Amino acid sequence: MFITFEGCDGSGKTVQAGLLRDRLGERAVLLREPGGTEVGEQIRRILISKENGAMRAQAEALLYAAARAQLTEEKIKPALKQGLTIICDRFIDSSVAYQCFGRGLPRDFIERINSFSAPEPDVTFFLDLPPEKSMLRMKESGLDRIELADAEFHRRVYAGYKALAAAGGRFVVVDASRERDEIHEEIMKTLVYI
Amino acid sequence: MFITFEGCDGSGKTVQAGLLRDRLGERAVLLREPGGTEVGEQIRRILISKENGAMRAQAEALLYAAARAQLTEEKIKPALKQGLTIICDRFIDSSVAYQCFGRGLPRDFIERINSFSAPEPDVTFFLDLPPEKSMLRMKESGLDRIELADAEFHRRVYAGYKALAAAGGRFVVVDASRERDEIHEEIMKTLVYI
Repeated sequence: MFITFEGCDGSGKTVQAGLLRDRLGERAVLLREPGGTEVGEQIRRILISKENGAMRAQAEALLYAAARAQLTEEKIKPALKQGLTIICDRFIDSSVAYQCFGRGLPRDFIERINSFSAPEPDVTFFLDLPPEKSMLRMKESGLDRIELADAEFHRRVYAGYKALAAAGGRFVVVDASRERDEIHEEIMKTLVYI
Repeated sequence: MFITFEGCDGSGKTVQAGLLRDRLGERAVLLREPGGTEVGEQIRRILISKENGAMRAQAEALLYAAARAQLTEEKIKPALKQGLTIICDRFIDSSVAYQCFGRGLPRDFIERINSFSAPEPDVTFFLDLPPEKSMLRMKESGLDRIELADAEFHRRVYAGYKALAAAGGRFVVVDASRERDEIHEEIMKTLVYI
């Protein structure tokens, strides 16, 4: 099974992905985007560096796609072949929410550059936390280049996620304003039915 | 005017691009790919690092496209607007030759991921040197990850360039087995007629 976690920065995705990994034990592999491979972690450093304020939106979108292509070929496909469960902290929906809704790039450009053979997730948990709340959480830790974008950007990203999740399908919307253990139990219950 | 230099590693592109820049003086800007911007140079380091033997072909192609998108928006478009001549050491044809012919990726994937709004070069000098000769030149200096690829790969890249150049249009084929000054004079004569 291929499970992805999506949501705004500060929505608690990473914590929930980790809790699920611990619960599933050795049958599960936890990966994160961008990163998750040696090449991908180098790409991640370029993406989050505060020195890179001159980065253009198209270059940014292509860097995310590059890290994703590497993760797909090097880790996701082999693990799925071995019958393992993949838990991925962000995947292609992040590019639609951040680069398309957030940065304003055309959606067909995002789809074209991600048109390598990535598997479709079986289920995607959208951790739904309004940007006013997620931004408060972010400010408590140091901010990276993406997180430093203005509040309007984060509101567009959130609206993007809401639009994606509204289409239904593999999306499961989780109210992320609650306690972490409560959220985790809801995620576990959902997985039983898939 | 937007001028690009293309050819196999060791064909003398970089030398010829530099000679042309020196001849044109301040009216010209010399750029290189991948790189030419701060973000692009960071991407270049990932691409040429010998540590990154695990890099997959799709990720590689996307990294080249990312560096190119950044160069296009940050440097090429503003310089062309100012009426400057751009001399670029490699551009999109390199991705067709290396990632498509060399690595075997589908040409339409290369075209899709490069479908940001890059300007078309006015003229492209293909420095034509058979791989047997260019590989000899390469061995004289330290080799990077791309240059270390096997001989068969470099033969496919060369065949790719020959196919591109055979289509004519903006391509000018230059016999790169001659002395550098002779090659430079031929390039200057060609430019007079464009």
